[in-house]
Amino acid sequence: MHRTLSVASSPVRDLLALTSRPEVISFAGGLPAPELFDLDGLRAAYDLALRDRSVLQYAPTEGNPALRSLVAARLTGRGLPTSDVLITTGSQQALALVATALLEPGAVVAVEEPTYLAALQCFQMAGARIVPVASDDEGLDPAALRSVVESERPAMLYLVPTFANPTGRTLSASRRAQIAALAAEHGFWVVEDDPYGELRYQGSAVAPLASISDRTVYLGSFSKIGAPGMRLGWLRAPADLPRTLVIVKQAADLHTSTVDQAAAAVYLTHNDLDAHVARLCVEYGARRDAMIAALPATVPDGTTWSDPDGGMFVWLRLPGDVDSAVLLKEALRHDVAFVPGAPFYATTPDHATFRMSFTTNTPEEIAEGMARLAKVLR
Amino acid sequence: MHRTLSVASSPVRDLLALTSRPEVISFAGGLPAPELFDLDGLRAAYDLALRDRSVLQYAPTEGNPALRSLVAARLTGRGLPTSDVLITTGSQQALALVATALLEPGAVVAVEEPTYLAALQCFQMAGARIVPVASDDEGLDPAALRSVVESERPAMLYLVPTFANPTGRTLSASRRAQIAALAAEHGFWVVEDDPYGELRYQGSAVAPLASISDRTVYLGSFSKIGAPGMRLGWLRAPADLPRTLVIVKQAADLHTSTVDQAAAAVYLTHNDLDAHVARLCVEYGARRDAMIAALPATVPDGTTWSDPDGGMFVWLRLPGDVDSAVLLKEALRHDVAFVPGAPFYATTPDHATFRMSFTTNTPEEIAEGMARLAKVLR
Repeated sequence: MHRTLSVASSPVRDLLALTSRPEVISFAGGLPAPELFDLDGLRAAYDLALRDRSVLQYAPTEGNPALRSLVAARLTGRGLPTSDVLITTGSQQALALVATALLEPGAVVAVEEPTYLAALQCFQMAGARIVPVASDDEGLDPAALRSVVESERPAMLYLVPTFANPTGRTLSASRRAQIAALAAEHGFWVVEDDPYGELRYQGSAVAPLASISDRTVYLGSFSKIGAPGMRLGWLRAPADLPRTLVIVKQAADLHTSTVDQAAAAVYLTHNDLDAHVARLCVEYGARRDAMIAALPATVPDGTTWSDPDGGMFVWLRLPGDVDSAVLLKEALRHDVAFVPGAPFYATTPDHATFRMSFTTNTPEEIAEGMARLAKVLR
Repeated sequence: MHRTLSVASSPVRDLLALTSRPEVISFAGGLPAPELFDLDGLRAAYDLALRDRSVLQYAPTEGNPALRSLVAARLTGRGLPTSDVLITTGSQQALALVATALLEPGAVVAVEEPTYLAALQCFQMAGARIVPVASDDEGLDPAALRSVVESERPAMLYLVPTFANPTGRTLSASRRAQIAALAAEHGFWVVEDDPYGELRYQGSAVAPLASISDRTVYLGSFSKIGAPGMRLGWLRAPADLPRTLVIVKQAADLHTSTVDQAAAAVYLTHNDLDAHVARLCVEYGARRDAMIAALPATVPDGTTWSDPDGGMFVWLRLPGDVDSAVLLKEALRHDVAFVPGAPFYATTPDHATFRMSFTTNTPEEIAEGMARLAKVLR
């Protein structure tokens, strides 16, 4: 067995098992709300796409040309001028491709801590060494990054700058500029993972790092604005990287499903995705507000939490010497669930932290779930 | 950039560009015939699958439970008792997962030579060293394998034992038994890549290596019997391998498209895939016969070729000191194409070889294409 696999675990998958009992109100998942999927629109798009026999055939590794144009135009419209993208099998695959293409075994990857745990798994699988960078309510701390860059010479910085997983935090515009300058000065790659950026419920948009840094690979996804089951992501990369990434993708799966790509292209052509995202933002915003409003009566005094302007997650830290994994077992006895914070840390976990998702429950369910949680935490 | 990428090229993709002019009769591709896809049946399957909102959601990495059962039952019915499979994003992904899970950088992979070139790319990407094993008309030579095993201690043997790509050859039952015994004795893994096994036009089935060897990982695919655009493959692995492979797949793309998997499960439940495959075999068998019948008048005296019982390919070797890549340029001037043999070799290529696919042209088109080719080769 490959040496890195003996240490890799599968925490996301293990956690999903927590939520399977129907009586549990789960804040543990990182799932979009299924009742908000545009099922009829997508079914019609598949039906129309499957009028053309060629959607069943092998296809170019780069992806469906119509879908690439539509995604590039959408990114351009959101303030990130884009001439082309590589379509990937979800943005998880984009992460895996970037790790394979950019990381020698032993290379250093700097990450915000805590961060998305399946990204950590990806970098571990590539044989990289992960070095955490301190962050606060404004996101990654550029001074801490400079120190890590000078001492560790990372090949790559990975971050979710907007509505981060797990913290919900957004990196400020001035910090983005400082990070772009550091990347230009020291020549490391920045991987900007942006699955949540369109899900903004308050405040105003911050320009993507990729729009001010030509050292940045930008990853996007249809999973949170469309449907994750279709496994469609995209990757916008500078310089010669796309050519290399296409070779890596060819070895990984030849190409992403021709059917799913064609259906997405039809959907984007015949439907108003902006209007759909606006509906999602209304619903998710109300759910966010319900969770934030219930928090003071749910958690003990001294608890801190993030106040996200968008995305799916609130990140909390309990006072005192507590282990949220122990509290989770008690919470499950009360039919409510969250995710303990430890797996999101690359190095030394803070066991008093945990993550709560507000997207898959209605405000009423959130109120009930928070009442159950109060019995455990207070 | 990762060290192995500087040497990796993208020959499959470059070759696909050859066939783009509509006036070219191409024997170069490795594509199924699009006019034989069951477009109506598959469109209906997507429509039915998309009545269920959950097909748009994230799903377990292992794959759709119904599809896994249907595939396992189908393998069992074909003589390979199977309790479970891992669904992959095409069997190319299965290859990539196996390479990541089983190969340390520097590990040795033994391969039949010539062999499937995207497999070679996969092993190179994993940092493995590829060692060729001699073969003849009966496939891989067990005596040559024993010698390689004893001197090189490979971690893995990769082969396409039935209707191989590119040769069309099938490994005999007695040789399969010898290879299984060698694997048991020396403890290497065998990767049995079987995308073509159901496409038999003459002769009788040979039991899969996996049915006589518990050191064998078996890879199957929907691409040649259903539709490649859906990117659905499967992997049957012994011992504890499935658990490791699921962890590797989670980092690679979380899971294969929930929509494509559900549509395939519906299709297999409501349609007779055996009858569809039987229709494919009638059509492809007639195309095979047309190509084989035209060969004596197409190639110069002294040319040798394989006489495949199934699959998609005939493998040829021209007499004398010729380079089929040079002849291809001349062939394209006559609006006909094939694939030069060199890229299928891991080590020293035989430039007088080339591969011809008979699946995507009708017998009439094959006759015309062969007449054009005769002008170049004779």
